[in-house]
Amino acid sequence: MSYPNVNTLWAETLVEELVAGGVDSVCVSPGSRSTPLTVAFAEHPDVTVYSHLDERSSAFFALGRAKRTGEPTPLVCTSGTAAANFHPAVVEATQSGVPMLLLTADRPPELTDSGANQTVDQEKLYGDAVRWYRDMPEPAARPRAVRMLRTTAARALAKSTGSDPGPVHLNCRFRKPLEPTPAPDDGPDGVPDDWAGGDQLAAEGRNGPFVRTRQGAPEPPATEVARIARAVEAADRGLLVAGPADDGLATAPLESLANATGFPVLADPLSDRRYGPHVDRIDPPVCGGYDAYLGSEATESWPAPDVVLRFGASPTSKPLRHYLRDAECRQILVDPSGGWSEAEFTATDYLVADEDAVARAVADRVSEPGTRAWRERFATAERLHWEAVSDAFGDRYWEGGVLADVAANAPDPATVFVSNSMPVRDLDRFGAPRTADLSVLGNRGASGIDGITSTALGAGSATEDPLVLVTGDLAYYHDMNGLLALARCGVDATIVLLNNDGGGIFHVLPIEDDDTFEEQFKTPHGLDFEPTGDLYGLTFRRVEGREAFLDAFADAVRTDGTQVLEVSFDAEASHAVRDDLTARVRAAIASR
Amino acid sequence: MSYPNVNTLWAETLVEELVAGGVDSVCVSPGSRSTPLTVAFAEHPDVTVYSHLDERSSAFFALGRAKRTGEPTPLVCTSGTAAANFHPAVVEATQSGVPMLLLTADRPPELTDSGANQTVDQEKLYGDAVRWYRDMPEPAARPRAVRMLRTTAARALAKSTGSDPGPVHLNCRFRKPLEPTPAPDDGPDGVPDDWAGGDQLAAEGRNGPFVRTRQGAPEPPATEVARIARAVEAADRGLLVAGPADDGLATAPLESLANATGFPVLADPLSDRRYGPHVDRIDPPVCGGYDAYLGSEATESWPAPDVVLRFGASPTSKPLRHYLRDAECRQILVDPSGGWSEAEFTATDYLVADEDAVARAVADRVSEPGTRAWRERFATAERLHWEAVSDAFGDRYWEGGVLADVAANAPDPATVFVSNSMPVRDLDRFGAPRTADLSVLGNRGASGIDGITSTALGAGSATEDPLVLVTGDLAYYHDMNGLLALARCGVDATIVLLNNDGGGIFHVLPIEDDDTFEEQFKTPHGLDFEPTGDLYGLTFRRVEGREAFLDAFADAVRTDGTQVLEVSFDAEASHAVRDDLTARVRAAIASR
Repeated sequence: MSYPNVNTLWAETLVEELVAGGVDSVCVSPGSRSTPLTVAFAEHPDVTVYSHLDERSSAFFALGRAKRTGEPTPLVCTSGTAAANFHPAVVEATQSGVPMLLLTADRPPELTDSGANQTVDQEKLYGDAVRWYRDMPEPAARPRAVRMLRTTAARALAKSTGSDPGPVHLNCRFRKPLEPTPAPDDGPDGVPDDWAGGDQLAAEGRNGPFVRTRQGAPEPPATEVARIARAVEAADRGLLVAGPADDGLATAPLESLANATGFPVLADPLSDRRYGPHVDRIDPPVCGGYDAYLGSEATESWPAPDVVLRFGASPTSKPLRHYLRDAECRQILVDPSGGWSEAEFTATDYLVADEDAVARAVADRVSEPGTRAWRERFATAERLHWEAVSDAFGDRYWEGGVLADVAANAPDPATVFVSNSMPVRDLDRFGAPRTADLSVLGNRGASGIDGITSTALGAGSATEDPLVLVTGDLAYYHDMNGLLALARCGVDATIVLLNNDGGGIFHVLPIEDDDTFEEQFKTPHGLDFEPTGDLYGLTFRRVEGREAFLDAFADAVRTDGTQVLEVSFDAEASHAVRDDLTARVRAAIASR
Repeated sequence: MSYPNVNTLWAETLVEELVAGGVDSVCVSPGSRSTPLTVAFAEHPDVTVYSHLDERSSAFFALGRAKRTGEPTPLVCTSGTAAANFHPAVVEATQSGVPMLLLTADRPPELTDSGANQTVDQEKLYGDAVRWYRDMPEPAARPRAVRMLRTTAARALAKSTGSDPGPVHLNCRFRKPLEPTPAPDDGPDGVPDDWAGGDQLAAEGRNGPFVRTRQGAPEPPATEVARIARAVEAADRGLLVAGPADDGLATAPLESLANATGFPVLADPLSDRRYGPHVDRIDPPVCGGYDAYLGSEATESWPAPDVVLRFGASPTSKPLRHYLRDAECRQILVDPSGGWSEAEFTATDYLVADEDAVARAVADRVSEPGTRAWRERFATAERLHWEAVSDAFGDRYWEGGVLADVAANAPDPATVFVSNSMPVRDLDRFGAPRTADLSVLGNRGASGIDGITSTALGAGSATEDPLVLVTGDLAYYHDMNGLLALARCGVDATIVLLNNDGGGIFHVLPIEDDDTFEEQFKTPHGLDFEPTGDLYGLTFRRVEGREAFLDAFADAVRTDGTQVLEVSFDAEASHAVRDDLTARVRAAIASR
């Protein structure tokens, strides 16, 4: 290989190794300092380039892809504030354990802190939010340095997808010329062909990744499995809790575990286990209504659970979290990442081990399921809950009703992305378990309302499945720039926009009656989102009422191009329906 | 004072001290965790609240206000990714030395790294980009803690506006209840009235700020002034360079210094010294065309300057920076911040002292100005340059011509904000010095194209002067969310949108002919910005050609409400005009 300059050698080698390590796409934002990386990615035949003008949206788009695929899509940006725009998505990635690889271009070291244009302090820019950071040395045509570069590529990928996945940051310094043109310093015709001397490895790498890296999954110790199995067998009233996880406990092991133990499965909507064919194959109920009835007058007369097996992150449902907190029973957390997602501090056992392996091993050892009466309590509560939800449609349409309808009517298979604040909570409470293969995703690591559209479109770009995004007006506004990816990155989506003109969630605050509330919390903006149709080449439709929504939704998911279906609600009225429905469910359960 | 809970006590006290220290406004984004701060600011009678839904835009808006006023406008956000959205503006503030005060709400310490919702690691979130950071202790009704709080408010303001102004970050932790409702822990009726015991100071503060802080300006040592004055007197060919500075060398001292020394003044468009009444009162020329003619065939036969006095940051003009680098003469940098903005590393003297004091003291000691021939060289070059610019309008309109027209026709007084990438460079080359009182601003610390609209609108919100923003299509897109401030924060602007459908600046890269260029660098987006008119309640007008632009501009600056004037250009054609014009100027000067 001959290279016009060391930057070209460096960038092409890095990209070559990333591709050998499995990378097949990249998110690039325009800029000058990043030219060597941009050119190397763009000219690699096996790389799809997603070009984003706003680095913030770009990083969330890459996050969404990684949430759906489990593999990082590298991010490239120029030097300066560009890199700081990645930060919100980096925070979400670190909190939710999503692979991410940040390649920030930077000035050469002699310009650090010199006042040179577009030169800022990018060292450890994301602080402790990254799993690994390297201030890359200057590009050089020296064999050992290039072997380091090849190794670093493998190491960065391994670190971002390892036992505790998350973001990795390589700060990449380049000196001019940034383009693939000869640099006087590198020799009259560029980097000499024999730059590596006899070091073939440095010059050509290997046939495949330079270092083949594999991460072993932590196997649960047999003694520990036996202890858990004993606790489970001794229990009459056990629960399996599947918390939010993009790639958590798989379907088959959950099925085995549930059927062996007979424990009801409380499946967070973001656990990917509330939906799927297993729902019908599990004997104890797969529950999705617990957010409405647990820990209330409905269940206070119930005996407490005596053992809980938890997988995934802290559940979205606050009633469920508090129910578990108050249960004072044995609570076993299984978490391969060692992340201690345990905000109520009531775990009695914490096991760092592969979730599927634990579920299978425990299922194998348990012969006697828990009591039928306990299962029946949950089965009945669920039945009453879903009946009440169904009845509620007779009264009026409300935000949660839209989530119920989306969950029931999303195509099979589909990727369904739900925004933070109310949509994920409404899906939690109103989205009934279903055998369809729905990949339900949300940004629940830091639970921000930023970057929602971009994350969803990124996830949608990673598969052929139809993409449905349910978002609110604040989130839609916050990441409006993300809509550019529809045309630019060729994503096709159905976007359900629940517009209540401001922060609906703040109606649950005690401050609601305060004078300051309307101005600073509800924050009505009065934005007319219809022009986003013309701006971003999408179809914008306003729909009113359930029938119109169901028609429009069915139409949108089977139509090419992106449809935004705006459904407007009064946030307070929606809260009233939620409260009313919950009260009815609780009363019905309590009266049994 | 009685308080329903310690959060209220804490937040009201903090706001009270900030107001006593001069704060009269705040930028708030909606959120729950920040409720104590939001309520305290919103309910303070002397505070104007600017409410922003996007924290990134909010921070740039606050930056813009501070650039115009020299005082920080505090920023409030909720916990989580919200705080990371401030980061791009924090980077710009640190690089350009602009006061900023970040109040990020956070969860109480026991929830750190627990997996609790919306809980991320906010400690030292902005790394070394802030001048001062404090992880605030938990709110408490303890006299010493409250005196600490009062002192911290004074200290934060002092640090952000001190000798090296910049961002300050206070991470503010609050435990529920966040609203002004009684908290059981604080007593049955809230914080008891006698919480402070006899400590009046803690409870009531003082009549005015708790600590009156003053920052002395560094006076130049007399011996140093004498040395500089001797060097200046001995010089035949001196130059005064006013680099970018929001609050740099003042008009009167510059006038004295220029007239005493007879040195031409090379005034960066962002120095605030290219425009103003002094332009006519300075005998040596105030130069604005140097970006076209310096260091080229036009000036290579000139003798080199023998002494250069530099104020402000590194000049925007690369030809000027290289001219100074190659001059190998005595170069004296005067910089009160001690920031060493010296990217070419050719300074011979670095003086940390108040710029006005240095200018005055040197002016007082110099009796004999530099040679007339040297002044005449610059005066002639300037005359030929501006003639050529004027002539160029006969051929065709180009992006730089718009900047020339804006500079010449902006109202007097006005705030003129120019985006990075081409607008600031075009203003540098084509914006002729003028006696009008124009405050010209740009984000030249990190030179990003993010947050431009918000920074401009923030600057506009700080005065009654008309606001003119000249931006490009990428910057306009990047911060489209910032347009919400027009209605929400009551700002009125004239926005000149130079649309060349992508990154015009990349035409100056050698990569222009590469296949990858069009796709990854020019990045055409084809966005139709007209719908932003309907979205944000502004008037969107497309204008073509100079006459139409001049009419529309004159109309827009005198009309209420915001007008966006979109002028479309072919980036390559504009570059051709620039090159042609520059060649003609250089030839004209060389042939004298």
